[in-house]
Amino acid sequence: MEYLKKLDKSNLRIKWLLSSTSDSWLNQALKNPIEILIDHAHCERKAAGFAMQLMFRYVCEDGLSEILSPLAREELEHFERVLTLLKSKGKCLKLLAAPPYGSLLAKEIRKQEPFRMLDSFLVAGLIEARSHERMSLLAIHSNDSEIRDLYADLLRSEARHFGLYWSLSEARFKNSDIRSRMAELGEKEARILDDLHPYPRMHS
Amino acid sequence: MEYLKKLDKSNLRIKWLLSSTSDSWLNQALKNPIEILIDHAHCERKAAGFAMQLMFRYVCEDGLSEILSPLAREELEHFERVLTLLKSKGKCLKLLAAPPYGSLLAKEIRKQEPFRMLDSFLVAGLIEARSHERMSLLAIHSNDSEIRDLYADLLRSEARHFGLYWSLSEARFKNSDIRSRMAELGEKEARILDDLHPYPRMHS
Repeated sequence: MEYLKKLDKSNLRIKWLLSSTSDSWLNQALKNPIEILIDHAHCERKAAGFAMQLMFRYVCEDGLSEILSPLAREELEHFERVLTLLKSKGKCLKLLAAPPYGSLLAKEIRKQEPFRMLDSFLVAGLIEARSHERMSLLAIHSNDSEIRDLYADLLRSEARHFGLYWSLSEARFKNSDIRSRMAELGEKEARILDDLHPYPRMHS
Repeated sequence: MEYLKKLDKSNLRIKWLLSSTSDSWLNQALKNPIEILIDHAHCERKAAGFAMQLMFRYVCEDGLSEILSPLAREELEHFERVLTLLKSKGKCLKLLAAPPYGSLLAKEIRKQEPFRMLDSFLVAGLIEARSHERMSLLAIHSNDSEIRDLYADLLRSEARHFGLYWSLSEARFKNSDIRSRMAELGEKEARILDDLHPYPRMHS
């Protein structure tokens, strides 16, 4: 709980998030806990899929699979944990229309290497950072103790995942290039979330 | 070692393999241990990718993700173990031209559901079964004790993975349909391996 209290005071622990999540998102999420859980399960499997996609794209890049493969495993483990909680509540996965967040961020990834690699790491990192911020809010404010406990457990990993993507970038790109590109992407990320998406989603 | 001795006597423990691996494959593999290890690493990551692909395709199919997600995690863990052994030997991953085995088997998967699902499970299971048989041969005959130990450790999972794909089929399809289709696919699988592929691969 100490960790959560600190987060509550300054929830932008990852400085690249240029906006704080609005109260309107939190209210929307708290009113729709199951839909958010289902969406969160999809987020975890997609995060695993994205890590594997990067691993496959750059399969012979030294030092990449060693990071991305355990990361993908951890995302899958989280996916399974959310699935277990859903089932214990008599719910199961269903397809949900995705909010524009992920696809709009993906569009920011430049097509040309090595920019494509850098942007992929930074976009993945930003999504982890935002998930961390929102999960910390749910870990504190959710009305369901099982959901609070689950998010409290999972959210530390999200911050660590941000760090992994950051370190993958640092090992391959100039620090100043990373920072200036991250500032641009952070700005885009914040703007995408300016308007609350009508459907309750982890990234609405 | 008891497990391995039993395997040596009747290495077709999974009855759907309609042929035994030839001595020429074993000789080719023993002469090229590093190339086989690298190819094996790729096989593990591709197996994880295939499990995830099925999980994503049938994401709301009850009881599927619960099996496929841990399976994908285990394949990734094996991938990491092979990678670690390669690195300890001063080698790293490199792209290898794939033998025709995987793509020829994939062509056998019918396009129409529910046959597509059944065939996907059975083809995945057959590949696991063949990997199990070949890894058991390497666990016994490899000249490198580290490689023998690795394969001895990993091969039990491959047999279990076959069982998982089989049980996924059994939960959804008529037993007689599974058996008749598996007999057909097993026949194709054996024929594909009739001619030794010129490059040393796990499925050459």
